[in-house]
Order: sequence, then structure tokens, then C-alpha cells
Amino acid sequence: MYNDIIKDLDPLFNPKSVAHIGATNNRNKWGFSTITSLIHTYKGPIYPVNPHEDDIQGITVFKKVTDIPGSVDLAVFTIPAERVAAAMEDCVQKGVKSAVIISAGFAETGPEGKKLQDEVLAIARRGNIRFIGPNCMGYWSASSSLAAFMMPLLVKDGPIAFVSQGGNVGAAVVVAGYERGVGFSHYVSCGCAADIQIEDYIEYFGKAPNVKVILTYIEGINDGLKFIDVVKKVTPNKPVIMLKPGKTQAAAVAIKSHSGALAGGILRVNTPEEMLDVAIGLLVQPLPKGPNVAIITPGGSYGVLCADACEQEGLNVMKLPKKTIEELDQIFPPRWSRGNPVDPAGDRNFIAYLTAPVRLLDLPTADALIFMGFGGFTLFGNLMLQQRTKTENTLKPEYVASRDAAIKAIIPVIEDIKSENIYKVETAIKQLVGMLGLVLGIKDETPIEDLATILIAARHSGRLDNSLVDDLLDLTKGEDYIISKGTTRVAIINDMISRLMRSMVSQWIASYQKPVLTTTFTEEQVKLVDDHYDYTSGNRAARVLAKLLEYHRYLNQISR
Amino acid sequence: MYNDIIKDLDPLFNPKSVAHIGATNNRNKWGFSTITSLIHTYKGPIYPVNPHEDDIQGITVFKKVTDIPGSVDLAVFTIPAERVAAAMEDCVQKGVKSAVIISAGFAETGPEGKKLQDEVLAIARRGNIRFIGPNCMGYWSASSSLAAFMMPLLVKDGPIAFVSQGGNVGAAVVVAGYERGVGFSHYVSCGCAADIQIEDYIEYFGKAPNVKVILTYIEGINDGLKFIDVVKKVTPNKPVIMLKPGKTQAAAVAIKSHSGALAGGILRVNTPEEMLDVAIGLLVQPLPKGPNVAIITPGGSYGVLCADACEQEGLNVMKLPKKTIEELDQIFPPRWSRGNPVDPAGDRNFIAYLTAPVRLLDLPTADALIFMGFGGFTLFGNLMLQQRTKTENTLKPEYVASRDAAIKAIIPVIEDIKSENIYKVETAIKQLVGMLGLVLGIKDETPIEDLATILIAARHSGRLDNSLVDDLLDLTKGEDYIISKGTTRVAIINDMISRLMRSMVSQWIASYQKPVLTTTFTEEQVKLVDDHYDYTSGNRAARVLAKLLEYHRYLNQISR
Repeated sequence: MYNDIIKDLDPLFNPKSVAHIGATNNRNKWGFSTITSLIHTYKGPIYPVNPHEDDIQGITVFKKVTDIPGSVDLAVFTIPAERVAAAMEDCVQKGVKSAVIISAGFAETGPEGKKLQDEVLAIARRGNIRFIGPNCMGYWSASSSLAAFMMPLLVKDGPIAFVSQGGNVGAAVVVAGYERGVGFSHYVSCGCAADIQIEDYIEYFGKAPNVKVILTYIEGINDGLKFIDVVKKVTPNKPVIMLKPGKTQAAAVAIKSHSGALAGGILRVNTPEEMLDVAIGLLVQPLPKGPNVAIITPGGSYGVLCADACEQEGLNVMKLPKKTIEELDQIFPPRWSRGNPVDPAGDRNFIAYLTAPVRLLDLPTADALIFMGFGGFTLFGNLMLQQRTKTENTLKPEYVASRDAAIKAIIPVIEDIKSENIYKVETAIKQLVGMLGLVLGIKDETPIEDLATILIAARHSGRLDNSLVDDLLDLTKGEDYIISKGTTRVAIINDMISRLMRSMVSQWIASYQKPVLTTTFTEEQVKLVDDHYDYTSGNRAARVLAKLLEYHRYLNQISR
Repeated sequence: MYNDIIKDLDPLFNPKSVAHIGATNNRNKWGFSTITSLIHTYKGPIYPVNPHEDDIQGITVFKKVTDIPGSVDLAVFTIPAERVAAAMEDCVQKGVKSAVIISAGFAETGPEGKKLQDEVLAIARRGNIRFIGPNCMGYWSASSSLAAFMMPLLVKDGPIAFVSQGGNVGAAVVVAGYERGVGFSHYVSCGCAADIQIEDYIEYFGKAPNVKVILTYIEGINDGLKFIDVVKKVTPNKPVIMLKPGKTQAAAVAIKSHSGALAGGILRVNTPEEMLDVAIGLLVQPLPKGPNVAIITPGGSYGVLCADACEQEGLNVMKLPKKTIEELDQIFPPRWSRGNPVDPAGDRNFIAYLTAPVRLLDLPTADALIFMGFGGFTLFGNLMLQQRTKTENTLKPEYVASRDAAIKAIIPVIEDIKSENIYKVETAIKQLVGMLGLVLGIKDETPIEDLATILIAARHSGRLDNSLVDDLLDLTKGEDYIISKGTTRVAIINDMISRLMRSMVSQWIASYQKPVLTTTFTEEQVKLVDDHYDYTSGNRAARVLAKLLEYHRYLNQISR
């Protein structure tokens, strides 16, 4: 069975048809949420099974699984525990290949429930039915767009596979991932794991082509040695991030004592938040080759806290060579920090702030860059732009934190004082052209009028995504566009500046093959940019970088 | 000077008039942001000073401070460093009482700047002018509604006083506080602190009646012994939360070695986020009398992680007495965890979930309660309610995370399927009446029709805030209200359920005088309730509780 993990679990993750035993029209039962979840996601044939219903949401209901005319790859159970064994017997008769038992009331309730669970397991084994659960929240498989969840979950397709022994922790990580724009290839709430074990899922994820990073929340492991064996095979190719409460120390000791090297293969984290932070880091960053980190910060104290966090995480806040300091002397005013963290000390020239990182990344000794204040330019830029003078201000001034609110607040300004607004637009366009210069490698003295020409060239360079080029081109077409979008040029330009900054960071990562972690000041700022891969503090960025380094060192060690 | 701290700093925090040396119409200078910040906040006379301007935002500009006709309590400096000394001389001549020097280019730049700074200090001392800075971001004083900031900051009135050696860390904490609904009485970015020292501000805050909690971000202390002396006087009455990078170890050692007791008086935190978390805890919670904590969680794994975090923070996840377990047996179905953390194991009866905490708080041995999943009912409630069946679903189903989005998604449902919606409204009203029963102490079998009567009674009981009563009464007036608000009854009711839950938690805190810390699953959920005092994880709640206990123990120790 062990060598055939793909064959074993494929009917579960890529079923050609699904029966739902316990589907119902009663909104007060989990069977209602589950069938609705299935109907909204899965495109193949769905067969609701319930002796007391005829029609569920327009689909014919069958009394028993054996009444279903077609073949059934997957059976979803939401019926009470005491009726699961009989229904599983039907599934064996029907030739069902896999199952998920959401129903609770098994091993978790004591010896009686354990007996029931063993009975169900024996029946399933006899019919070669592999199953998730019991006592779980369900699962998600992106490859067949199947969400068999007992509650509506926010989930989208992506390269992360996740098996969780805790349904709520799992659900929260999945939802938080959704909010940050990160998707999942698989998510399994494994519940009591009577049949398929944590390590089975991990082995499968290790072999599944749409998985890049594996997450697991573990409270206890049944077979520690098997777990270690699987992890050893998987981690050389894919990192496994483990969240594990310290309480189950026995298992932790079992894992650690067996293999020193393993500690590097499994990346342990302390909170669901950190789990997602590290997963995002592994997805979008190359691994650092060493501990030397350069930091650039728009504010001294942020740099101090970040440097402190880096040292605590075992990273090295590197000393800058004289040559680099001299290069940065050319870029920043004399008051800059002249050391690492690089702090322009309140200099408002953010083209300079975006030029300096290249000097740092150029250093062969620099293994990584933490770029602080990402999104901050947009936030403070919007706040500054909407800071109206007394004479122009007919409305109550509003200090706002979100992009939407900023846009709303700017609209009256553009309507009231055209000339003032034109000033703002020109200043912003100038910045934008400067940034385009950096991104596209053109001179930043390019006249504003040449924007359209540059953009048409950019379309062919492949260095900007087309939607951004189109938006930028629209900008050159004047005021009608602004009104039709219900917003202002200033807001649009600031938004584009954010997107350009993102492009630049991506380019740095790609050309230097070094991690560049971006941080913002507040949660709100994270949402000012299109994806939410930023970390809200230097502490979080430092922690992620340390985990990336841990994984690099592990890979180095095993390859020797 | 030391004993007259109130007299010394009062002109700064309650000035009767303000001169701004360096006010400008040039949007590219900090002097523009600063004067705009002043004009938008301060109600007293403002005198812009700039030899090159005549009118700034409709206000007459003076060439020099000495040209101003009226008296000047405060001078704000945003002019270049090399011109500060001469302008300060003018201030001495004019009899200005206090100043804030935002201008950079002093001690932070090296020996030359230090010399300049000493010169400015000597002039100010001669004229008895106390000043903030130089090289700072400005400050906020709620008592005179004065924001002299070099950039627009989101800040509102409240009981927290904050002095920060880091301008950006300070700004981020203030903005994050604003986002969470927490206000500041004072915020000072103290910069180089040439004149007024960190400990001077803390002493002043200790004596200011509108301050309840004091925050400070410190990189280094000039006079460690004086600092300790001040803190010793302040902390018996008001907690001081300190964020301090570990790098400046010398100062840390100086503080620690001097007095063991002091460690309890100053609450050290590791991140800006934790600083705000602990401040909110100290503001809204009583101190725990001991380490015993009860946990209630809507999901097992969340409870496990929280219990783990509590133990790591030195708290005790208490064993529940047999009697309490039996009481909870009456409330929950048999599958509940029958221990601490209390986990109803998927039971959907949330009136039960809101009844159980009282049984835990009743225990004389329970020192605190962590109430997990706050806001989650609203989130998942909204998600469940909008989970449309296939037959009723003409629109694409949307899994949404925010309240606004949920409301938008529900609107088409209410329009399309009235009958379905009525079912939802009745279910929700039933829950609402049940909760009103708990809050107001009435029976939960009260017919829905009696809602208005109950509410009119509630208005007089003082147990609900009037705006909530009004909104609830509106609810009984039928569908017109719904449409006029542009939302649905379901969404409104869910919102009210959140507000009622908040009322209940407040009542528990008030009547038991024990801390009840609430947690949510994600950042989004925090924003589903009116104020954002919840913590996003059990880890954060446990950390705060540990700090509250630390402060309790310190107070106990010094009172002995």
C-alpha cells in the first residue's frame, strides 16, 4: 500500500463522481452546508443519498449508495456515527473507491466510539476504501475543484498542500491564506485519522506535481518512525512546515532523537500566522546562501528593531564595505545612516530609496535584503496628497488609512480645485516616470509627454505586465478616464507606483537570486498592494528569513 | 526643575498660542505638512513665521517671531538646523515658553551637529524654554487637540500616553492604535532629546490626570539612575510598557541591576504590536489575581494552541472541578471536551457557548478567562446564511470575508427569495432574543413579538447602550427600515449579535472583576466588531494575560 500512495489517494483528490451520504435540505444540519459546498465547487456528477429526501437543490436523491446508477469514486459522510458502518458496507458493495467521514462520535469520544471506528475501518479495508476522518471538517482538492467542507471556507487554487489535525486551526490558516492571496492545492482536515495518516498525506503531497510547499498541524503522531521515514524522502525536494503544540512532547522527542538532520528538513513554527509567513517566503523567495542580511528602512527605529530581530534569529546584520557607503553617499543626503540598516533619515526622494537596494544586492557578501516600509509610500503618499490646505478645504479633513477611503476623500478635491489637483497629478506622474525609468532602464529625465511612447515600448519589453501597461496608457488619455473609473488620477498613480515597486522587487529577486523580503508598518498597509505577501514587521521578516536559511543549510548538509 | 515637571511641560501640552517657524506653502517641504497638521487640529491662535511668505492658507505670516503681536506659548521649528539657534534666540526675546524642534541635522549627524545642538540648548535654557527634539517627528496633545506632526497621522483622543525615541515606530503604533479604536492623550516623538528626556515625559504622564497607561520606545537612556527613580514613582499608579531593542544592553543592564523590583513595574514587550496589545489589555481588563486561566474555544485545536501558549507564558491552564464539568454537561452535548479548554466540539448552539463562561467565572479558583472565537459567529454566521442553494442561486456564489461584502452578497438573496429570507430573519431574531435574555436576565422563550416591549424596558435598565436599543427597536418596524439602510435584517441582526456579545463580555468583566480576553481567528474578523480590542490568536491573548499578571504581582510586592 505504501508504494502506491498516488494510486491509493488519487480517487480522493481526483474523483470522477461523488456520493454524499447525509445530504439534506435542513439548513440546521452540517449535511446542508456540505452538499452546498460540493455543489458550488465540484463539476462532476454528485449523488445525494438520504432516505427521507427526494430532491436536494434540484438533484435527484438516492435512498442508498447501492441505488446510484453510475460508478462512485468518493463517498462523503455526514450521517450520525452509529449509521456510518452500515453505509460503509453499502459503499463496499457499490465499489466506492474512497471516502471522507465528517461525522463525529468516534475515537475522540472514548472506548465505545473507538470500537465503532475500528468496525468502520475494518469494513473499509475489506473494500479497499481509503478514507479521511472521521470527526473532521472535510477537505479541498484544487485539481478537481472539490470542496467537501462542513462549513463555507474561503479557499483558492495554489501551490500549498496542508494537512491539519485541527479543523479550526486548519480553517483559519486557509482563510487567512485566502485573505493574503495565497492558494492551496490540497487542504485536508484529517480528524481522527483512522485510516489515512498524516504521513500518508505528506507522502502523497511530496509526489503531487501541483504542490510546492507542505504544511502540517500535528498534535500527535501514531507511527513516529514511519513519519520520519516519509519526511526524509519528501524534504529534500519540498519543504515541510510543521506547527505543533509543545504539549505532545513524547512525539516531539521521538522525532528529534531519531535524526539530527531531520530537524533541518522539517521547519517548525509556533503560530498559524508564522506558518503562513514561512510558506509565502518559501513560495516567492530564493533561499539565502548565508546569514548576511542588508536592511533598508525609511525610519531609523524600524531598522533598529529589525536588526535586533535578525540578530536574535541568528542572522548577521552585515557591515557595509566602504565602497558601498561611498556609492550610497552619492544617492542620499549627508545625514543618511552611513551603515546597515540603511536609513535615508527622512529623505523624501523615493527614487533614491528604490535605487539603493541594487547597491546592496550587488554585494557578493550580501545573502538577503529586508526592504522595509513597502506600501508605506502609498499610504503616506495618499495621506499627504489629501492633506488639504485651509483655503481649499470645504469638507471636514479626514485622516484615513485605507486606499478606498483615500480615493473617496480625494474625489471632492479633484472636483473642487482643478488646478491644485493638476499639480498633484503632475508630481505623481513625474515620480511614476522616474520609476518606469528604473524598471525599464530608461532615463528618468524623460518628459512626461513621452509616457505613452515609453509604455508602448514597455509592452514589448516583457518587463511589465500587460494590465499595468494598459492602465498606464489609459492614464495618458486624460480626464474622462478618471471620471469613468470613479476615482482620481492621483489615486490611480499611487496604486501604479505600488505595482511598479512590486515589479522592481520581483526583478531584483529574479536577477540576483537572493531573497528580498518586504515589510509594511500596519496591517492596513498590507492591503494597499495587490497581493499581501508583505510582513507587518521586521520581526516577522527576520523569522521567515531565518527559516529559509535553515532550509538552505539542511539541503546543503544532505547534498554533501 | 524636577519637582515642577507639570509647570515645566504644561505650555507644551496645553499652549494658548502657537508659532510655526518654517511654515510654508511649498508642498514639497515638511513645513507644509506640519502647518497643515496644526491648522486641522489646533483651535487657538496660530502664527506662521517665514520671511518669504505673506499668507499661508489664509493666515497672516510674520517675518520673525518677535513680530508677532500676541504672546506665544509654543514655537514649532521646521527650518534647517543651521538657522535654529538664531530663531531660538528670537524666541527667548519674545518670551516663548516651549518649543518642538522637528528639524534634523543635530547630534544624530556627528560632532558638528552636536555642537549646534548644545548651542540651541544653551540659548533655550537661558530663556527657560523647554523643548522636544531636535530631529523628531513632532507630537500630539489631546487636551489641547494639537497635532504638530511632520506627516499626517491618524490619532484620536484616549487614555494612553506615549513617548518614543523612534519616530517611525511611534507613528506606526499610533496609527495601529487608531485602526483598533484606541486613542492617545499624548504622543511625543522625542528625537535627540537634547532638553526634555524620556524620564521627564514619563514623570509628566505619571501626574497627568488624562493618562492611564504609559508607553515608551527606548533605544538608549542618558541618565539611567534618574530614569529608574522616575519609573519607581510612576509604576505603582500607572503601568509603563517599554519596547526596547536588546542591542543597547548596557542601559538594560543598568536598569535591571539597580532594582529587582523594577522589573515588575516596567512591562517589557518585544514588538510594536505587543506594545499595543498589552496597553489595550491594561485599559479594558482588571488584573488577574493569580495564574489560573480557563479557556473556552469553538475549536479543539485552537484551544490546544492557546493552552500551550498559556503554559509557555507561565500561566496555569486550570483543572476544572467535577461540579463545573457536571454543570457544563447540562449545557453541552455529551461530546464536549469535559475539561479545560472547554470545547463544545462543533455544537452549533451558541447561546450555550455564551452561557458556559459564567460557570467558569463563577469558580473562585479561576483568575481569568480566554474566550476564543469572538467575531467568528458573525463571520461564519454570515457565510452560512449566504450559502445559497443551487435552485435559488442565480448569481455566482461568493465566499467573502468582510462584513461589507457579506451584506452586499446577501442583498440579492433578500430580493430574490423573500420566503427564504424570512426564515433567516426569524432564526436570527430568535438567537437575538435568546441573547437579550442572557444580557437582560429575561427568559429566552420570550415570543419574538415581545421584542419591542423588552427593548423599551432595556432602555431603562441601563444594561444596553442606547444606540443599540434604538437599532434593535428599528428592527421591529419592518422592511422599510431594511431598504432605507441599504442592507438586510440578517446582516443587521448579526451585527447586533456581535454588539450584544461585546456587552456580555463587558458585564462579565464588571461583575466578576476578572479579565476576559477575547480572540478571533483572523485579522478580518477583528474588524467585524465595533472596537478592535480582540487578539487574533491565543498566543497574543496569553502573552497579554501574562503581562497583566506580572503587573499584579509587582503591585502586590510593593504593597507588602
